[in-house]
Amino acid sequence: MTTPPRVLVFGTGSVGTVYAWILSRAVGEGNLYTVCRSNYAVASTAGFTINSTIFGDGLKFKPQVVRTVDEAVSLSGGKPFDYIVVTAKAIQTTPSMPEQLRPAISPHTTIAVIQNGIAVEKPYQALYPDNPLLSCVVYLPATQIAPAVVTHREIALLHIGTYPSHASPEHKATAESFSRLLNAGGGRTQVHEDVQTERWSKLAVNASWNPVCALSRSRDAQFLASSPPEYALNLIKSLMTEIASVAQAWGYDNINAKTVEFQINRAKARELPGVEPSMLADAKVGARMEVEAIVGNAVRLAEEKGVPTPLLRGIYALIKALDATFQKDPEKVSAP
Amino acid sequence: MTTPPRVLVFGTGSVGTVYAWILSRAVGEGNLYTVCRSNYAVASTAGFTINSTIFGDGLKFKPQVVRTVDEAVSLSGGKPFDYIVVTAKAIQTTPSMPEQLRPAISPHTTIAVIQNGIAVEKPYQALYPDNPLLSCVVYLPATQIAPAVVTHREIALLHIGTYPSHASPEHKATAESFSRLLNAGGGRTQVHEDVQTERWSKLAVNASWNPVCALSRSRDAQFLASSPPEYALNLIKSLMTEIASVAQAWGYDNINAKTVEFQINRAKARELPGVEPSMLADAKVGARMEVEAIVGNAVRLAEEKGVPTPLLRGIYALIKALDATFQKDPEKVSAP
Repeated sequence: MTTPPRVLVFGTGSVGTVYAWILSRAVGEGNLYTVCRSNYAVASTAGFTINSTIFGDGLKFKPQVVRTVDEAVSLSGGKPFDYIVVTAKAIQTTPSMPEQLRPAISPHTTIAVIQNGIAVEKPYQALYPDNPLLSCVVYLPATQIAPAVVTHREIALLHIGTYPSHASPEHKATAESFSRLLNAGGGRTQVHEDVQTERWSKLAVNASWNPVCALSRSRDAQFLASSPPEYALNLIKSLMTEIASVAQAWGYDNINAKTVEFQINRAKARELPGVEPSMLADAKVGARMEVEAIVGNAVRLAEEKGVPTPLLRGIYALIKALDATFQKDPEKVSAP
Repeated sequence: MTTPPRVLVFGTGSVGTVYAWILSRAVGEGNLYTVCRSNYAVASTAGFTINSTIFGDGLKFKPQVVRTVDEAVSLSGGKPFDYIVVTAKAIQTTPSMPEQLRPAISPHTTIAVIQNGIAVEKPYQALYPDNPLLSCVVYLPATQIAPAVVTHREIALLHIGTYPSHASPEHKATAESFSRLLNAGGGRTQVHEDVQTERWSKLAVNASWNPVCALSRSRDAQFLASSPPEYALNLIKSLMTEIASVAQAWGYDNINAKTVEFQINRAKARELPGVEPSMLADAKVGARMEVEAIVGNAVRLAEEKGVPTPLLRGIYALIKALDATFQKDPEKVSAP
């Protein structure tokens, strides 16, 4: 029997907690380290609790809970980590998140980035160009309702691919290994030749609904009901169409009018008040939002290809300004 | 000596209070009636207080303070009002503001609308087509800092004209009379052949800065500093340019690129954090905003002439949705 891999989960919000649980089932609690911040006190003493419509109610587990990457390295006796799974919110921090991981990175550590947005892998690639880097797109409706207590429903699907998509066979193999590991823990995964298609597809939804709901303080169905379709619905549709045109400029042709139509119909079918995107949840409590990962990077990728995105640029200016008003508390700019 | 005119001021926020004071000096406190709501208790017992850099500090006056138009009519012994001055916030109410004025309207009552926005005169014209109707555009930096206590600085200028601009000589004469009345009370006025030029000029500023600042929870200079000029500054400039194009489609050619440039330079020159537009002040306390008067009507006037305003329409959808979240308190939807 081979030694189970050693895994470090960086950031234990709702997504981090659910994937930590899945991974703990595959590698054992002793081989799983979680970097926690606001929920450290609870997680390190009582462990985590998950109530899931898929996995079951009252699931409890207690991995090696640490406050920092340094503490994880020290607690593990300096043994290298096989996987670092980044599930922290994708916001700017000082030092940067890739920089914070450095003490735990060995030449063979696979870095799996489970974060929203587009082009979020670049800073990891820049610092660790020789490590296997996995880009992951997650579908997981989950909420941390109290420190280290998470509710989850409906789906837990992770799309996985290397970054860049044309990676070496060795790096490609780590995508398969990571997928098998999650599957062994009860997760559902899909490995892609080019996972960026999945990123763009999710971005079309996230870069439109997230800032619109945060700015208007409305859930999605509430927003659609707040003015006639030529205003509210049209704004969302136009934003999605702009994002689809950026995706196409980068070679992702199947992000198109059909994608937009499908996503619009999903939202139209929802009953009031609808769902609360993460940026709205953040805005309500004055927490930092994933502005650059979700909106700013999309705007810059549009500029690189000369694609006009007048509405997205306007929304970017608005949400960036709103986010700036949340930055007074220095506690909020350190991760995870 | 002729009998002084009898004046009813509808709405005593900051603008209503300062113009009530000016009018009280022209007609006497006994001939001036003010409809008050949230500040009724203070105003009816202690009167109003104004601290102004122009008019002086600690100015006190006590007109006939009433809660409703019906009460004003009853208190005045049924004698008709010569002027009704509407200074209430331009929001939708039930019954409508023009409808609420009915008990005080005689065939000769002049209605002066001192409200922000565009096309705000139409509901008054529809109900009282034969009365002289004055459209007024106000420049008056004032704030009600406590019930019936107002601070004011810098300027108190009222642009006055008939609505419609091509009114009968009799109605034109009331613009002159109202101007003389305010001048007699110490006010500064300008009578225009067509005051709509002034409305469009002010709208270019209001319909851009007001919703942008309310949505982003930022003062104007703060917003400009929150992202590079190609995003924040460009959004404001593009919105102003859209509004200028609507003004031009309606025949107001001198609302153009020069107007936009002038207004942009004014804002760029401001020091941090800059000024707080009324919609931002409203949004901070969850009060109804003048969405339809300032943004909605501009969008509809654009549609009537087929002028494309994609950014303004997007902003309209956002600010309308935000305003809808403030409408839970029924107290807040009755005027003034």
